[in-house]
Amino acid sequence: MSRFGDATAVERIGDGRYRAELDGGFGFAQALNGGYLMAVLGRAAVEASSHAHPVSTATSFLRVAKPGPAEIVVERRKSGRTAEMARLTLVQDDAPVVDALITTATLDPDTEPVWTGEQPVPALPPVESCLGMDGGPKDPGDRGFADRVDMRFDPSTMGWLDGRPSGRLEARAWFRLHCGYEPDAYAMALAVDALPPVALNLDAKGWSPTVELTWHLRAVPAPGWLAVLGSGRLSAGGWFDEEVEVWDSTGRLVAQSRQLARTGRA
Amino acid sequence: MSRFGDATAVERIGDGRYRAELDGGFGFAQALNGGYLMAVLGRAAVEASSHAHPVSTATSFLRVAKPGPAEIVVERRKSGRTAEMARLTLVQDDAPVVDALITTATLDPDTEPVWTGEQPVPALPPVESCLGMDGGPKDPGDRGFADRVDMRFDPSTMGWLDGRPSGRLEARAWFRLHCGYEPDAYAMALAVDALPPVALNLDAKGWSPTVELTWHLRAVPAPGWLAVLGSGRLSAGGWFDEEVEVWDSTGRLVAQSRQLARTGRA
Repeated sequence: MSRFGDATAVERIGDGRYRAELDGGFGFAQALNGGYLMAVLGRAAVEASSHAHPVSTATSFLRVAKPGPAEIVVERRKSGRTAEMARLTLVQDDAPVVDALITTATLDPDTEPVWTGEQPVPALPPVESCLGMDGGPKDPGDRGFADRVDMRFDPSTMGWLDGRPSGRLEARAWFRLHCGYEPDAYAMALAVDALPPVALNLDAKGWSPTVELTWHLRAVPAPGWLAVLGSGRLSAGGWFDEEVEVWDSTGRLVAQSRQLARTGRA
Repeated sequence: MSRFGDATAVERIGDGRYRAELDGGFGFAQALNGGYLMAVLGRAAVEASSHAHPVSTATSFLRVAKPGPAEIVVERRKSGRTAEMARLTLVQDDAPVVDALITTATLDPDTEPVWTGEQPVPALPPVESCLGMDGGPKDPGDRGFADRVDMRFDPSTMGWLDGRPSGRLEARAWFRLHCGYEPDAYAMALAVDALPPVALNLDAKGWSPTVELTWHLRAVPAPGWLAVLGSGRLSAGGWFDEEVEVWDSTGRLVAQSRQLARTGRA
């Protein structure tokens, strides 16, 4: 197994009850990444289902999840030939941490799209023209999430790093896992919440807590780099939206998400 | 009260329990509109909250809702100064019909946006250049949903009506309620699920059941017509996405949604 595979594993401990050991390596300081939590929830949903893929995942982030043991409660709500629907909760210390509604179905990897829209513009520059996260002096310790994912950022969306935000809700990067785990549904859950908040390119500072994030798996992704394209439509009253599209190495739209988040304050 | 106000009213019958009388006028045949059900759920969420607006609503559509009595169960999951989160279920005949995760908060109607993206192109033509639903011979009976909402459709997105679909996932219309109910959060829930399925402009036929729909209230809407702009990114393997933006009469982005639906078959 790879680190991401191990970190998202779930063990059945009863009827609709699963246990996971949350890996602090998928967080920033003590706060675990929301995409990582969605991957764990997705595994529990599929374990409890007769279908192979979490095609739709809506999550409400109630509290900060901590490294260590967690329980996932899965309530099956509708079983059908095409899709099954469940209500899930990730629980720590007897308190709900993340609520989710997950629909599972089985996608055929050989399906050809009936119709796909164009990739958003501007396009993501080639990997070799993008910025890695290890350009500066290295932190000698484990940097958590930044050491799990290999992301190469579109320089035009990273001006906020040195005080020149682009003035638009945007962030774009190439994405893969350092541990060699190839793209699948669970890696997609991570990818849709991996970018720095798009609001950093406006006036936001620091951490932008996600309130709600819904993502859909649209195709079984191919191995290789993923293009992760983030944008937003509105920042107002301390709230902003962030939309992410994930395109795989064969040029297929494989995942799409929207989150509603609070604007960070320094 | 107006018809829409009456139709979405909820009555508290216990701790976290509300009753509604679902109005068959907000449906097609015996299937009630999903936006109408989200409006009812939103009212129950706000009734159970100390906040004024349903800012984020994620819904999983389990079964078809029928006209008549329904119960809404609200479980409060997180209470905060800025936002409260709840898990809701609309129940009929002792079975869950719609599951929802709703975050409530209080939006200030006087907030000016920090930044807003451009309206999608192509733009919606003026109301007088759009198509009403009463151009043809009138059905003598009540047409349900079509008699509740006054929608004026962009002709370029209605070619599917006479066998000339545009070949893109799209639908656009002006929207208001016939009963005179002015735009608010609950009318927004209706607006984001009011368009004919965008997949009708590809090869889809007939009803396209919504599996999951998440929508966000981004501002308190002004009175008057709403521009309801629908598009999608991908149709593949019997699944398509539909994004809707709602812009109010002052040119403000007031709601945004995405749904994942099954492609209809005749």
